[in-house]
Amino acid sequence: VIVFERAVRFEEVDAAGIVFFGRFQSYAHDALEHFFAGLEGGYAGIVVGRGIGFPVVHLDVDFQSPIRYGDVVFIETSLAKIGHRSAVFRHLMKKPDGTIVCDAKHTVVLTDLKAMKSCEMPADVRALMLAHLAAT
Amino acid sequence: VIVFERAVRFEEVDAAGIVFFGRFQSYAHDALEHFFAGLEGGYAGIVVGRGIGFPVVHLDVDFQSPIRYGDVVFIETSLAKIGHRSAVFRHLMKKPDGTIVCDAKHTVVLTDLKAMKSCEMPADVRALMLAHLAAT
Amino acid sequence: VIVFERAVRFEEVDAAGIVFFGRFQSYAHDALEHFFAGLEGGYAGIVVGRGIGFPVVHLDVDFQSPIRYGDVVFIETSLAKIGHRSAVFRHLMKKPDGTIVCDAKHTVVLTDLKAMKSCEMPADVRALMLAHLAAT
Amino acid sequence: VIVFERAVRFEEVDAAGIVFFGRFQSYAHDALEHFFAGLEGGYAGIVVGRGIGFPVVHLDVDFQSPIRYGDVVFIETSLAKIGHRSAVFRHLMKKPDGTIVCDAKHTVVLTDLKAMKSCEMPADVRALMLAHLAAT
Repeated sequence: VIVFERAVRFEEVDAAGIVFFGRFQSYAHDALEHFFAGLEGGYAGIVVGRGIGFPVVHLDVDFQSPIRYGDVVFIETSLAKIGHRSAVFRHLMKKPDGTIVCDAKHTVVLTDLKAMKSCEMPADVRALMLAHLAAT
Repeated sequence: VIVFERAVRFEEVDAAGIVFFGRFQSYAHDALEHFFAGLEGGYAGIVVGRGIGFPVVHLDVDFQSPIRYGDVVFIETSLAKIGHRSAVFRHLMKKPDGTIVCDAKHTVVLTDLKAMKSCEMPADVRALMLAHLAAT
Repeated sequence: VIVFERAVRFEEVDAAGIVFFGRFQSYAHDALEHFFAGLEGGYAGIVVGRGIGFPVVHLDVDFQSPIRYGDVVFIETSLAKIGHRSAVFRHLMKKPDGTIVCDAKHTVVLTDLKAMKSCEMPADVRALMLAHLAAT
Repeated sequence: VIVFERAVRFEEVDAAGIVFFGRFQSYAHDALEHFFAGLEGGYAGIVVGRGIGFPVVHLDVDFQSPIRYGDVVFIETSLAKIGHRSAVFRHLMKKPDGTIVCDAKHTVVLTDLKAMKSCEMPADVRALMLAHLAAT
């Protein structure tokens, strides 16, 4: 598990006064960028440098508690499943007191962005993901 | 089914050149606002005027085909399920040629936004939703 | 002047309950896309098809009245100035009662997006812009 | 001057492949939140706790160099002018090599968000701003 701290930004709420539900996908993506920060060039290096992306093909997300401006979440990112060309990332978002805000499972397919076709996982990317595969 | 046409906007793509997956929640919400446009005051009237919202408690979304700037989708919004305080909206997004882009199921809970507690569905809201309940 | 009607979207407010000031640049861009909608392929055709863009090099914006969810603005787009490679678009946003919300002047430079260098205006683009040059 | 480091996020580019010009207002606001982070409760404490906001009434922004995914900017925030109820923040954004990306001047009016009327600056807010007033 790699943990990323994320404060709600001023412009992320909706007309109901809570963080817009679509924004949590941005939160999850921020956590994903942080997850790969340890690799040479980080996530941007994978996307821009190597031309490989992780398009999401399935989302399964539970929202359990709304958050507002002034709140902070801790996002625990791990792998629920790893295949050769696909994987399931889990981003579990909690308030500082442990309350679960959002439990997001993102199924991604490793993709050659030029050809827009699935591809094998690079070894270093796969190794990092395996190191954070949740026990079941 | 109520259909809403939505063009990709200039700023909605990501660094991989396709519409960012989190944006489809905004697309779905635009379709939801359009769905309720026929009621007095529209969706804004429900949220601002009556103080009732539809926070999403669960997302189940399949992404089948990426879209880019210049593309248009038709979003078919219907109800997959209707309870007393909750419901499942389905937003099926297709390209003009019929290719499925995204199949999103959003479980929402009718909520009194002041108390942030679930509440009964207003009769007109429920009637509109029932009129678009998909046969199973 | 070409007029574009734009409703405030649910997710466009900030924690102060009004439309976030940065969002008005998106409103202006929506109006710009609408402005060029009459050309073959529209604005997307210019950007994606011809590889030409209008990066903004200067913004001069007055905000006169805040708007909230439920509000609608009419955006009057015209040209304040037209050169060979640059131009000043003016996007004047008003409430239905005529109250000025935002008066935005955007200086843009026609740019070959591949070379990221300024370029001459295509004749049809220039003709449309000249047709909406404000008298001074 | 208080400096804030900001990496371009994956979803912040537009269909021309560069950071969307409207996004820089979000960058500036992130820098503003960082500027006030030293006060008790931070910027959220001012907005949510004290009910005071800084709506922007005028924007004067120069864009000098585009940035892309993978880039980082350093935002130098200072005050160009301080009045009793209004002020001009300057957010000068530079690449690590010193290239100026964006020079943004935001005129704000201190506002009681409940009454939506201008108000006096709280003493601690004013003191922090005065400490970063640029010499002229």
